[in-house]
Amino acid sequence: MKNTTTTVAPMRGGIYEFGASLLRGAGQVMFQNNVWTGLLFLAGIFWGAYEQGTGLVAWGALLGLVAATLTGRLLGLPASDGAQGLWGFNGILVGCAFPTFLGSTAGMWLALVFCAALTTWVRTAFNNVMAPWRVNSLTFPFVFCTWCFLLAARAMHGMPPAHMATPELPAAVTALGRLPFGDLVEGWLKGLSQVFLIDSWVTGLFFLLGLLVADRKAALWAAIGSAAALLGAWAFGAERSAIATGLYGFSPVLTAIALATVFHRPTLRSSLWALLGIAATLFIQAGMNSLTAPLGIATLTAPFCVATWLFLLPRLQFDEQPKPDHSDWNGRQA
Amino acid sequence: MKNTTTTVAPMRGGIYEFGASLLRGAGQVMFQNNVWTGLLFLAGIFWGAYEQGTGLVAWGALLGLVAATLTGRLLGLPASDGAQGLWGFNGILVGCAFPTFLGSTAGMWLALVFCAALTTWVRTAFNNVMAPWRVNSLTFPFVFCTWCFLLAARAMHGMPPAHMATPELPAAVTALGRLPFGDLVEGWLKGLSQVFLIDSWVTGLFFLLGLLVADRKAALWAAIGSAAALLGAWAFGAERSAIATGLYGFSPVLTAIALATVFHRPTLRSSLWALLGIAATLFIQAGMNSLTAPLGIATLTAPFCVATWLFLLPRLQFDEQPKPDHSDWNGRQA
Amino acid sequence: MKNTTTTVAPMRGGIYEFGASLLRGAGQVMFQNNVWTGLLFLAGIFWGAYEQGTGLVAWGALLGLVAATLTGRLLGLPASDGAQGLWGFNGILVGCAFPTFLGSTAGMWLALVFCAALTTWVRTAFNNVMAPWRVNSLTFPFVFCTWCFLLAARAMHGMPPAHMATPELPAAVTALGRLPFGDLVEGWLKGLSQVFLIDSWVTGLFFLLGLLVADRKAALWAAIGSAAALLGAWAFGAERSAIATGLYGFSPVLTAIALATVFHRPTLRSSLWALLGIAATLFIQAGMNSLTAPLGIATLTAPFCVATWLFLLPRLQFDEQPKPDHSDWNGRQA
Repeated sequence: MKNTTTTVAPMRGGIYEFGASLLRGAGQVMFQNNVWTGLLFLAGIFWGAYEQGTGLVAWGALLGLVAATLTGRLLGLPASDGAQGLWGFNGILVGCAFPTFLGSTAGMWLALVFCAALTTWVRTAFNNVMAPWRVNSLTFPFVFCTWCFLLAARAMHGMPPAHMATPELPAAVTALGRLPFGDLVEGWLKGLSQVFLIDSWVTGLFFLLGLLVADRKAALWAAIGSAAALLGAWAFGAERSAIATGLYGFSPVLTAIALATVFHRPTLRSSLWALLGIAATLFIQAGMNSLTAPLGIATLTAPFCVATWLFLLPRLQFDEQPKPDHSDWNGRQA
Repeated sequence: MKNTTTTVAPMRGGIYEFGASLLRGAGQVMFQNNVWTGLLFLAGIFWGAYEQGTGLVAWGALLGLVAATLTGRLLGLPASDGAQGLWGFNGILVGCAFPTFLGSTAGMWLALVFCAALTTWVRTAFNNVMAPWRVNSLTFPFVFCTWCFLLAARAMHGMPPAHMATPELPAAVTALGRLPFGDLVEGWLKGLSQVFLIDSWVTGLFFLLGLLVADRKAALWAAIGSAAALLGAWAFGAERSAIATGLYGFSPVLTAIALATVFHRPTLRSSLWALLGIAATLFIQAGMNSLTAPLGIATLTAPFCVATWLFLLPRLQFDEQPKPDHSDWNGRQA
Repeated sequence: MKNTTTTVAPMRGGIYEFGASLLRGAGQVMFQNNVWTGLLFLAGIFWGAYEQGTGLVAWGALLGLVAATLTGRLLGLPASDGAQGLWGFNGILVGCAFPTFLGSTAGMWLALVFCAALTTWVRTAFNNVMAPWRVNSLTFPFVFCTWCFLLAARAMHGMPPAHMATPELPAAVTALGRLPFGDLVEGWLKGLSQVFLIDSWVTGLFFLLGLLVADRKAALWAAIGSAAALLGAWAFGAERSAIATGLYGFSPVLTAIALATVFHRPTLRSSLWALLGIAATLFIQAGMNSLTAPLGIATLTAPFCVATWLFLLPRLQFDEQPKPDHSDWNGRQA
């Protein structure tokens, strides 16, 4: 399904191509250039959002995906990026984040569309900046733009920070509650669902299935990433409720897929490297939780981005063979 | 008046050349390499500072301008930069900021001179860093150095943070007061005056006139930038007093001039791009207000810098013709 | 002792070579590729740590040094870096910082080893990023990684922030106590000892001696850097207790050595430049004290890194001769 001549051909504006571009955009959040993955991800988002009683999150995701993808076409950015879903993956995350954290006002929806559109050219901007080191901006356009708007929401009555954490100075964890085994298992699957800011283990299963249809190794490493981070967070005494809701898992899931399957060919050495990357992501996640506490904003997927960059920039070579064929992520994105 | 052989010729240390270099430095804050613009800007600063009862701000501006410009000469930096006023524009802003936020002590004035001088080589440093992407550091040397000293003022009794905001965790805007039409008009002109941290609509008129004598399109876009940002801030329910004092306008004014007249030739498409840039600057301004609240420092012109970079780095081409002849800003600053 | 053929030859895994690599690593914190310097530095650390009643800091330093140096070998990074001690200098600082700020739990020691190891490839990552501008990441890998873990400690019960400052919004210095002359002299020597987070003037003497055996000019400039920063902090009314414990001195010490002896040949002009660098470091230190207050983390040596970059990036030339022969720091570190 990936990298066939059809998918890389320039988009001609047909409704089918546009739909495929959208679905691939959903899939690319976890590096999968695959329409069925995207469809299962969207299904998982809708299931989880309605299960949580926050159906607007799913519609926001769809709106952000469409806005970001259309923007790439309107700006005349390289069509091959659009065909591979690389215009939309930041936008769908913006669309998940806005209704999750902000009240549903006209201003919020307008800002969602603008912010999602913004990510498309901010991605081009960031990729241009990073091109000399052959690293990708990953989901950082989503993180950067959404941080701006979440912070702005506190200064703008028409876009109220209804569901955001109260800003407070970071305080140490002083006591740990119990964490039953069932919660651990749910937290493991929620580590996947929280990639799209969804708190539902069923959604996690949808996402795992979506990865499976595209790349079994990606599914495996997503599962490993969430499990390893959960165990690490548990061992180091992180807040139990955050573990149970998957908040220590979503960034390591992405780091694991990136380091083990996208940017290196899977070998024993690259697998160990990916495990170290998961561990680093865990501590960066904990650190960023403290860093952003005074601002009352979520870390989003910043820990994944930072950790992955720190593990790619040394340019360690683990085998002689070329990298896996994720041409869309391997340095041609300028 | 711009880019004649005389102005680009190496400075020979004459008093006339030095005076011209200073005036152009004032003008370059809004991208105008023009002595009359600089003269009108300085006149506006003096008028506004004394109208506000803070005459020291104007003298600080003059001192910072002189210190930064002399520094360029002492360090032997490329003389053509000095002749175009590119040594002084960060320094004059430092000179406006210090007496605005800090108490008038001997330490403050010493620090002002040092900080203004620092901006001259920090500009070289930042421009060197950004050269690979052919973007300019804009007013960020002023922002970065001034932030350092404003933060330092809280730790240094000899440079007291007398007029700085009290650090506080960001709180949401919960109620909006009335904003009479007259205040909106004043706020529109104050959007211009606040570029130099002056709260005076008369100063805004001086600045508009200063732009008019150099480049009518720059004047038009400054007016559009302030108006559009003011309306946007009003529509999204930003704090009314901040709107009325032009605090949502000054960064969009600079973004508008930069995107519509300096870095792109004015066309329909680049005008739409500039409008998007104004909108982005507005949200970044609101976001940075929350970001800097716990530190009790002003955003200065950082929102302008960030937004302009985000809109230049994708390197979108809007027409086939070369860029406007702002050679001083178009990538030769390394 | 420096740069002989022997030291640059690839490490062959012998115990002697490994020990030399460790000692040079200790010395490289102050840019000295010299085993005797490293030995005296380690002696000073052990003396000071036990004098303070925090002997674990010294054992942490040793552990961090070993972990970081071994990591370079395990990853197969260029052996010449290891032979010159460039793998270990960040790790030894991590090892000093962890027991200084965190409670001694199993989790803390595990995290120390991981963080120290991390600095070795983060240094490669940062040096790769900075290579186009021919600047070095200096001690920033230590700063960045340690910040992550110190922030993480507030979110992790198993790695308690036992000795960290309480997060608080920055408040202005409102009154200054007395500062007896004897405290000034001690503070001057503690400016050196605090480079390794040790609060002991005896350790400062050890460090001065360590510099003397390697490079008299480095010792001179370390002494000048600490003295000048102390006087500046005193004149600008910085907090007296911070001055007396050397907390305004350690970053300027490093800036002074770097600018006056490592990256420029000592001349009158480069000496003036180094003095300006010391002054800038002082204000950046004061500013970062306010910046990090809401997070309750120390600035570590970040002010040194930032100031040194700002003074190297303009690439001013002070004489026609080549740079001093610190080949390990002069841009070949990519």
